Amino acid sequence: MFKKILIANRGEIALRIIRTCKEMGIKTVAVYSTADKESLHVKFADEAVCIGPPASALSYLSMPNLIAAAEITNADAIHPGYGFLSENAEFSRICQENGIKFIGASPEMINQMGDKATAKATMIKAGVPCIPGSVGLLDSVEQGKKIAAKIKYPVIIKATAGGGGRGMRIIHSDDEFQKAWDDARTESKAAFGNDGMYLEKYVVEPHHIEVQLVGDQFGHVCHLSERDCSIQRRHQKLVEEAPSPFMTAELREKMGAAAIAGAAAIGYEGVGTIEFLVDKNRDFYFMEMNTRIQVEHPVTEEIINYDLIKEQIKVAAGIPISGKNYYPKMHAMECRINAEDPRNGFRPAPGRITTLHIPGGHGVRVDTHVYAGYQIPPNYDSMIAKLITVAQTREECIVKMKRALSEFVVEGVKTTIPFHLALMDNEQFQAGYFTTGFLETFDFSTV
Amino acid sequence: MFKKILIANRGEIALRIIRTCKEMGIKTVAVYSTADKESLHVKFADEAVCIGPPASALSYLSMPNLIAAAEITNADAIHPGYGFLSENAEFSRICQENGIKFIGASPEMINQMGDKATAKATMIKAGVPCIPGSVGLLDSVEQGKKIAAKIKYPVIIKATAGGGGRGMRIIHSDDEFQKAWDDARTESKAAFGNDGMYLEKYVVEPHHIEVQLVGDQFGHVCHLSERDCSIQRRHQKLVEEAPSPFMTAELREKMGAAAIAGAAAIGYEGVGTIEFLVDKNRDFYFMEMNTRIQVEHPVTEEIINYDLIKEQIKVAAGIPISGKNYYPKMHAMECRINAEDPRNGFRPAPGRITTLHIPGGHGVRVDTHVYAGYQIPPNYDSMIAKLITVAQTREECIVKMKRALSEFVVEGVKTTIPFHLALMDNEQFQAGYFTTGFLETFDFSTV
Repeated sequence: MFKKILIANRGEIALRIIRTCKEMGIKTVAVYSTADKESLHVKFADEAVCIGPPASALSYLSMPNLIAAAEITNADAIHPGYGFLSENAEFSRICQENGIKFIGASPEMINQMGDKATAKATMIKAGVPCIPGSVGLLDSVEQGKKIAAKIKYPVIIKATAGGGGRGMRIIHSDDEFQKAWDDARTESKAAFGNDGMYLEKYVVEPHHIEVQLVGDQFGHVCHLSERDCSIQRRHQKLVEEAPSPFMTAELREKMGAAAIAGAAAIGYEGVGTIEFLVDKNRDFYFMEMNTRIQVEHPVTEEIINYDLIKEQIKVAAGIPISGKNYYPKMHAMECRINAEDPRNGFRPAPGRITTLHIPGGHGVRVDTHVYAGYQIPPNYDSMIAKLITVAQTREECIVKMKRALSEFVVEGVKTTIPFHLALMDNEQFQAGYFTTGFLETFDFSTV
Repeated sequence: MFKKILIANRGEIALRIIRTCKEMGIKTVAVYSTADKESLHVKFADEAVCIGPPASALSYLSMPNLIAAAEITNADAIHPGYGFLSENAEFSRICQENGIKFIGASPEMINQMGDKATAKATMIKAGVPCIPGSVGLLDSVEQGKKIAAKIKYPVIIKATAGGGGRGMRIIHSDDEFQKAWDDARTESKAAFGNDGMYLEKYVVEPHHIEVQLVGDQFGHVCHLSERDCSIQRRHQKLVEEAPSPFMTAELREKMGAAAIAGAAAIGYEGVGTIEFLVDKNRDFYFMEMNTRIQVEHPVTEEIINYDLIKEQIKVAAGIPISGKNYYPKMHAMECRINAEDPRNGFRPAPGRITTLHIPGGHGVRVDTHVYAGYQIPPNYDSMIAKLITVAQTREECIVKMKRALSEFVVEGVKTTIPFHLALMDNEQFQAGYFTTGFLETFDFSTV
């Protein structure tokens, strides 16, 4: 087992990883930018190294600084968390070259899954259902129109290097094609330094349902059931739950088997997630694979009593997995508590938290790196806490979430708590039928 | 179902009950003494009524004030929590007479179990193993010596109205009898207004293991497995866990069946606990029955995914229980975080909490009514939080507890956190073999 792990991340996920390391008896090294020197992940790690100024490019994304920090502290592994360098093949390779175990996917796997067109081709080959569309990258508007004529509008064009909703456009007719193409490529070039585009049939009324996977170094891949992440705003997840209220036992078997086939096709090791779109007929299509731990992993942990970070570290250290799939025993839900103003387009609201009261009690879990007096830096994402509830049924899970949200006091900054409270009171949400377009018609006057 | 419940208690248990009521859609009324007006239970209830000055006798123990508060607010039930009036037959009767449902035992059941000599006679009749000793109350020192000659020293004399270690003495020989008898009676008279004494064989190396029960109005009584509460200081529990590390599947069946027989013998309704002493041969003896919810109930909740307060309210409302026993699926442990100085004989340390950081993450539950800036009143018990961890195994549960304790920051007052940290590092505790005498030989220099 590793003796010391450097956590190349910040915020709640850094703290989350430190907690499991402590429980495993592994020493931890926190890294921090000067903006984060008062953060709890710095306080709770065994050692901490400042790796640069607030700008991510000069700190949390600086590979030389991270490798130097690992070498100075004699860390034998690096956990990248999510975001930042967690799906960066170059970083995975550099760790390897420096004899430091990267607790994540190999450079090859990251490359195979990080490029969406390549990933799709791999999945088709493995028999995983994919959305019909261009084979590989799209050459031109003309080619796009031809494919659209065949698979029928609406279609969507997406940046091959994209994510987070950037570099994608929905197209309803030939007339809209040229402008959408130009806009998406410009956006993609700016955001990712790459304007490669691919085209797909646009799935109407889609549910975002993802399958959690874990694979070891001995060729075993298992699934840990699914999460439903359909409550999104501009492709940013706000609420996640497990199991999906749209799931059936039969569909879970089919999606689980497809996800395992997809991951096994690339010899996947570590924890990972295959995201699917599921249409109203419960046909499902591969969307992408995330070769890292996800923000919403706690809902899976809660329904199966499982520590995903621990499992991730164990498989990275060469320990085999149990080899069995896990099925939901409970219902869990996660609300992302962001320092954003939900009454004002979720505008980020950094600032100082003056008062903080965190909910507790039966079936309530909170993962957070903030405290009363904490200054939220404007440099990074705005999530300040994950509030997770777990109960026997979805209905109980929602009432527990309402109760916990009503106890959650954050003063000094605006948060998404009022949005979540309104969502929990929404009848359609309570009924459990909602798609990724749900928030487009949500009545924000109830917030 | 009840529309509005008045909670005749304070602190974490009042908040605990409010949380479940919220989740059940039941309105709540908090009551508070003037010392508690800033307490969270007051803030989180739907209504709050001041019932008197700090002295418990004039507020939390004042039956007229509590009944008046219930009538003013139109509450249809009263939840007494633990302590205070939770096992007071008179209060149960007064509630009944005023048409308010007392969420606890009937006056008859409380009387039957509250008087220890009567309770023991009832249990013997029901076939529950009891410690040999006096039949009913002890008349004199002479009678006591005669019984001791028969059942062999050591023996223990106990106040029939006692609890919390007061009014009891261990006696090793005839020579010690007179002084012990005089001292115990004086203490009992002062503490409980009653100097009735009974005598029992003193069980050497006993484990305190208690069985959680729930009974409904239709004659069903089930058990929810056991809790081990052997880590005690002067009969005050400090750490509780479930399942007991001393338990076997066979013993669980036997103790569960005995506990059910005992509770069924009095037609028990509601949640309740039968406490047993278990000796090193795993012979077990009835100690007492608590006809109320207990402080340590969360460890049971965590190992079986069950809300005991919810079940208690449901059975009080006439809803039948499932009728099945529950068996441990996980391991859970609770550390009582008290405002006491463990390096100084656990002397109470009331004061103002200046900084508070509560641990979180996977498998960690905190039940607390305090917050940064909270002034702990000197009038009541010193418990400020219950820290509960849950994991697949006892070993994982302990490492998780260590991790959570190491994150728990309370500044401004001394707490039992350093004691708990030292206990978690103690090899004998880790090995899982300890009796109620464990802390007598514990090395407090490690704290």
